[in-house]
Amino acid sequence: MPYQVAVSGASGYAGGELLRLLAAHPDVEIRTVTAHSNAGQPLALHQPHLRSLAHLTLQDTTPETLAGHDIVFLALPHGQSGQYTEALAEAPLVIDCGADHRLESVSAWDHFYGGEFHEPWAYGVPELLVGGGAKQRSRLAGASRIAAPGCNASTVSLSLVPGVAAGVIDTRDIVSVLAVGPSGAGKSLKTNLLASEILGSANPYAVGGTHRHIPEIRQALAAALPVADSASEPEDRVWTSLTDAIRISFTPVIVPMARGILATSSAPIAPDASDADIRGAWEAAYGDETFVHLLPAGEFPRTADVLGANTALMGLAIDRAANRVVVVTALDNLAKGTAGAAIQSMNIALGLPEATGLTVNGVAP
Amino acid sequence: MPYQVAVSGASGYAGGELLRLLAAHPDVEIRTVTAHSNAGQPLALHQPHLRSLAHLTLQDTTPETLAGHDIVFLALPHGQSGQYTEALAEAPLVIDCGADHRLESVSAWDHFYGGEFHEPWAYGVPELLVGGGAKQRSRLAGASRIAAPGCNASTVSLSLVPGVAAGVIDTRDIVSVLAVGPSGAGKSLKTNLLASEILGSANPYAVGGTHRHIPEIRQALAAALPVADSASEPEDRVWTSLTDAIRISFTPVIVPMARGILATSSAPIAPDASDADIRGAWEAAYGDETFVHLLPAGEFPRTADVLGANTALMGLAIDRAANRVVVVTALDNLAKGTAGAAIQSMNIALGLPEATGLTVNGVAP
Amino acid sequence: MPYQVAVSGASGYAGGELLRLLAAHPDVEIRTVTAHSNAGQPLALHQPHLRSLAHLTLQDTTPETLAGHDIVFLALPHGQSGQYTEALAEAPLVIDCGADHRLESVSAWDHFYGGEFHEPWAYGVPELLVGGGAKQRSRLAGASRIAAPGCNASTVSLSLVPGVAAGVIDTRDIVSVLAVGPSGAGKSLKTNLLASEILGSANPYAVGGTHRHIPEIRQALAAALPVADSASEPEDRVWTSLTDAIRISFTPVIVPMARGILATSSAPIAPDASDADIRGAWEAAYGDETFVHLLPAGEFPRTADVLGANTALMGLAIDRAANRVVVVTALDNLAKGTAGAAIQSMNIALGLPEATGLTVNGVAP
Amino acid sequence: MPYQVAVSGASGYAGGELLRLLAAHPDVEIRTVTAHSNAGQPLALHQPHLRSLAHLTLQDTTPETLAGHDIVFLALPHGQSGQYTEALAEAPLVIDCGADHRLESVSAWDHFYGGEFHEPWAYGVPELLVGGGAKQRSRLAGASRIAAPGCNASTVSLSLVPGVAAGVIDTRDIVSVLAVGPSGAGKSLKTNLLASEILGSANPYAVGGTHRHIPEIRQALAAALPVADSASEPEDRVWTSLTDAIRISFTPVIVPMARGILATSSAPIAPDASDADIRGAWEAAYGDETFVHLLPAGEFPRTADVLGANTALMGLAIDRAANRVVVVTALDNLAKGTAGAAIQSMNIALGLPEATGLTVNGVAP
Repeated sequence: MPYQVAVSGASGYAGGELLRLLAAHPDVEIRTVTAHSNAGQPLALHQPHLRSLAHLTLQDTTPETLAGHDIVFLALPHGQSGQYTEALAEAPLVIDCGADHRLESVSAWDHFYGGEFHEPWAYGVPELLVGGGAKQRSRLAGASRIAAPGCNASTVSLSLVPGVAAGVIDTRDIVSVLAVGPSGAGKSLKTNLLASEILGSANPYAVGGTHRHIPEIRQALAAALPVADSASEPEDRVWTSLTDAIRISFTPVIVPMARGILATSSAPIAPDASDADIRGAWEAAYGDETFVHLLPAGEFPRTADVLGANTALMGLAIDRAANRVVVVTALDNLAKGTAGAAIQSMNIALGLPEATGLTVNGVAP
Repeated sequence: MPYQVAVSGASGYAGGELLRLLAAHPDVEIRTVTAHSNAGQPLALHQPHLRSLAHLTLQDTTPETLAGHDIVFLALPHGQSGQYTEALAEAPLVIDCGADHRLESVSAWDHFYGGEFHEPWAYGVPELLVGGGAKQRSRLAGASRIAAPGCNASTVSLSLVPGVAAGVIDTRDIVSVLAVGPSGAGKSLKTNLLASEILGSANPYAVGGTHRHIPEIRQALAAALPVADSASEPEDRVWTSLTDAIRISFTPVIVPMARGILATSSAPIAPDASDADIRGAWEAAYGDETFVHLLPAGEFPRTADVLGANTALMGLAIDRAANRVVVVTALDNLAKGTAGAAIQSMNIALGLPEATGLTVNGVAP
Repeated sequence: MPYQVAVSGASGYAGGELLRLLAAHPDVEIRTVTAHSNAGQPLALHQPHLRSLAHLTLQDTTPETLAGHDIVFLALPHGQSGQYTEALAEAPLVIDCGADHRLESVSAWDHFYGGEFHEPWAYGVPELLVGGGAKQRSRLAGASRIAAPGCNASTVSLSLVPGVAAGVIDTRDIVSVLAVGPSGAGKSLKTNLLASEILGSANPYAVGGTHRHIPEIRQALAAALPVADSASEPEDRVWTSLTDAIRISFTPVIVPMARGILATSSAPIAPDASDADIRGAWEAAYGDETFVHLLPAGEFPRTADVLGANTALMGLAIDRAANRVVVVTALDNLAKGTAGAAIQSMNIALGLPEATGLTVNGVAP
Repeated sequence: MPYQVAVSGASGYAGGELLRLLAAHPDVEIRTVTAHSNAGQPLALHQPHLRSLAHLTLQDTTPETLAGHDIVFLALPHGQSGQYTEALAEAPLVIDCGADHRLESVSAWDHFYGGEFHEPWAYGVPELLVGGGAKQRSRLAGASRIAAPGCNASTVSLSLVPGVAAGVIDTRDIVSVLAVGPSGAGKSLKTNLLASEILGSANPYAVGGTHRHIPEIRQALAAALPVADSASEPEDRVWTSLTDAIRISFTPVIVPMARGILATSSAPIAPDASDADIRGAWEAAYGDETFVHLLPAGEFPRTADVLGANTALMGLAIDRAANRVVVVTALDNLAKGTAGAAIQSMNIALGLPEATGLTVNGVAP
């Protein structure tokens, strides 16, 4: 019997992508879709591309409508998941696509988000090294509470963690600039998200260290640092004592494509790291992965190549003249960046084959 | 009587933009337009937007057709200008939009371009500081031979030169990532420039230190270094002895907009540089400029804001957590990046008001 | 001394384009810019591309702030101009970019707009034939009140009026399908105008005869009908008695370009109309026009060719197999479609050279 | 055991989409991929989005490399299939994505294509009515030779055939204008397909009755005409005697989206046809179809809603003022328009469930 699933925030972009992927998943049944202001309306009005689900009606997002399912997906604005997670204490599996359960550090939460702090959940990027050769995957197996990642954060973290874990890059001067599609900002009625503002233009935002995905990246990179006793450190270790150990200049730029992230990340080459050391670190980290691929030397990915797929494609260059390792990674912010990560993590948590219902091939051109 | 002008490469993108701007310039008359394979065809077939010039026919690009003009613009592929510049020895003013006369270093030319080296001409970015408080403008006054800049190069150079000259950034670890429109690559029949490849996608290229604009940027930044005896150095100083002094990781990413460059450039903050020192450096450099504007703190430019204009807009952030100064600059690669720079430089060379025929306002949305 | 100008709705798209063009106009001085909810803010916050006007502050749109100018432009949402036009009775020249003063028929107004009816003003499409060989231009000379056209309406009207006036097309079965950029819908916070909804997609709207520009087109075409006694008809003639004489199926489709309209309009060939008759009608109508160009047979325009220009470019095909004349017209909805038309009409009204401050060349690519 | 499949033209857009869909099909194994000039190269170089097939190498397209498979797909330029189809006489199932086997009329072929005429094959649009209540599906069952449709042709044919078959529209004055993505034109190195030419612009082509899909549409509509004795007519009936019975004005406009077709088609309302008659015709035709959906009255589709899907979405309006039925249909030119149609037809020919390996949900936003 398939798992019974509820998806909240079903009229938004992340909710829509969850539904698109779940509709193709053989082991789940979408029983309930909920929204706030759009409750009572046909799902098809808000997700006209989901033809196989056109019969569904949006219910109100309440603890009651979400109760009684095997799996509950929360695709709500940041700061709203917390009120439901307590009421959903009985739910066997809850997966939050918001930020509420991602950060381990109270001070980082306070600095970038504010409001009530919620406990961190298993982080839904299975391929991330977490020290000692282990990956997040091991924490997701059997998990009952999962925090899907921020799309920009997971792109950058996946890009650099192999180099961090192998000690071949200097984590004190990372620079990451991302070309991103506007769907990452959600279906929000803001002037800067209007088509007329974005078509034919490249628009930076959150320049200078203010983007909320920065602490999430630093946390992921810190977890991979080859520090002997990191396991014994208190939870605020990352944000406080690592201020000097992991520095990142992070600039997202909205470009005229609905979906996609292309992150160009670089860090100084560690002294004595050979080209083979460097490339070997990424090959070792991802050689066996289904959804994270390192391209051959000299090749770099395009966002179109991963459209709709659960794949992160990356290319790596070693620029000795600039003394930097450059990693360019493409992923689909709604798929591998959010909903695909959530479902991949769900598969792991439930003991299903990890790739169930997901595709490695993008829709291009 | 207006200056008589010839434009070669008139069927291409740079040539088209030269013609668009020259057609609005009160002091010139476009007498001759030339091309190679398209010679003999109506200009309107290749530049259908230039309605006021629809009566012109493309002539063959030869020393003879270009001879006898007051001003000759060369908008030819790299490596082709040299063969004409000797034949044009009599021409009062020649402006090359190609790379042939930009680099001072033979070894840099050999490394990035190859083929015959040509002498460097006055560099067509008037607002660039060149040391000792002077700007390129002073070298352009009365010049008879001008090299228009590379579009990416001038964007990055304008972004950082004030900080270099003031000594408030560390030039040994510059990182620049650019979102660029495909028109910068010219009207070339290459698969990676097809619309189907670029629409809905972000496509990196020349990753890892291979882009030909890198030596041009290093040369411009080096010229602004506060080094006492730089004037006495041999011409290859930049490329050889400055290898360690100026390092730049440079990654362009083609995004789905026809025109525009948005460069996100950053460099470590120099020790002891205060926020006021830093911001003051840029304010001092550009406070009086017509076409280079520093936006108020917290504001950053979009490429749409400079479409068709001769303006470079920049925003500056000081990210103390990352220890980097971040400068985001938008300009139109065909206008301020190429043809606008050429005409602005022409105005200076001829002693005309610098802004003649140019606009500071972009076409948006 | 330059004319003193006020622009209301200055934070919107039409207002921004008025300001961009007025800033380049040698005979006007922009003294006042006004807005509603954005009053008190710097203009630069809302029109960051208008660098030469960055010193202006938005005032509140009231009869008082608009009073005392030589020329007042109203760029307000439909139905809002009326309240100002009475108060502006003293203003020498008022130009409304809204719909309030376009329609001659009360019943058409009631059907498509509703609310209070306002008297029709001189219609700001100078090149439109209005019967007897005259053009709208003659009505604009010396006018003190001008209604700028709807952008889609003027595109279709310019496309077909020559054929209507010459009697070479059958006006009872016109079909027009338009590819339009979203800026025509204004800077409105609506979900269907979000970039994520429009990027990579073609989105029809107002299908089936509901678009508000339909009565405006029918009025313009009816005015050109070769009817002997049309001058003696009552004002509601168009909408009522011409119901059968002019029928148009009109479908706009939003496509992913910020600006531009490409209208493909067709009508049955009138019996006995020869190819020479047909092409000759358009050639005769526009042969002497500065801003409306018929391309050579076999050539058709692209919207990029008129970006930022005051030009309407059209191509004409005679499809005998389908028995239709097909006219494809490109114009920039904000320029020639709205603000350019307003300023061209202003020039005529004031007796200035018609092309003052306007350009015929587009910004391409 | 899965069917062994060969795909020729595997480095192009249609070939890439065939491979993407076949890779997700449970009953086939992709054994051979072939190309012409790219033979010998890795498939991944040309189809970097097909990660699951990255191990394949392109072989030369020859009768020998294509021989010995259960199913052969030809995705070759028009006019090239014929040379292979004879050599492939032994192949159990051949599916041609080119035009060579679509047309029944020699004179239509000569007029629009020229070169050697090839016999028509079963036409790969299963949902098309073909007279007497039957659909193309019945001709595809058990077929061994299938002609996949032209993407524009099938969009328009699906839009109108229900009205033709029911006699509720007048087929003598059809008008169809299509917004299309450039991928329909293939991976061809032509200036008008460059990104710089298409970004931010709407570009018409083949205006005035010259597009090669016109005879294909007329053939499909003619097949649905309620003519008693149509079965007894000679094959050139369509093109010759139906010249007056089916007339279509057809204009495609390239817009800046990689994929997708939005066709706005209209025809005069037949005398006495009621609204219920009209809407009922489409409901009856498609009510039971998996992949062709009529949206509720007042709703119209967007191309993004069908991206990557095998779905044709259509909305219908009855415009009594214009006396036209207007049908707006969205489909993905590479999926439902070409490769999806091919695979759906393959499923039918092989007796597999028709939807195997295909999806009804699009990738949006």
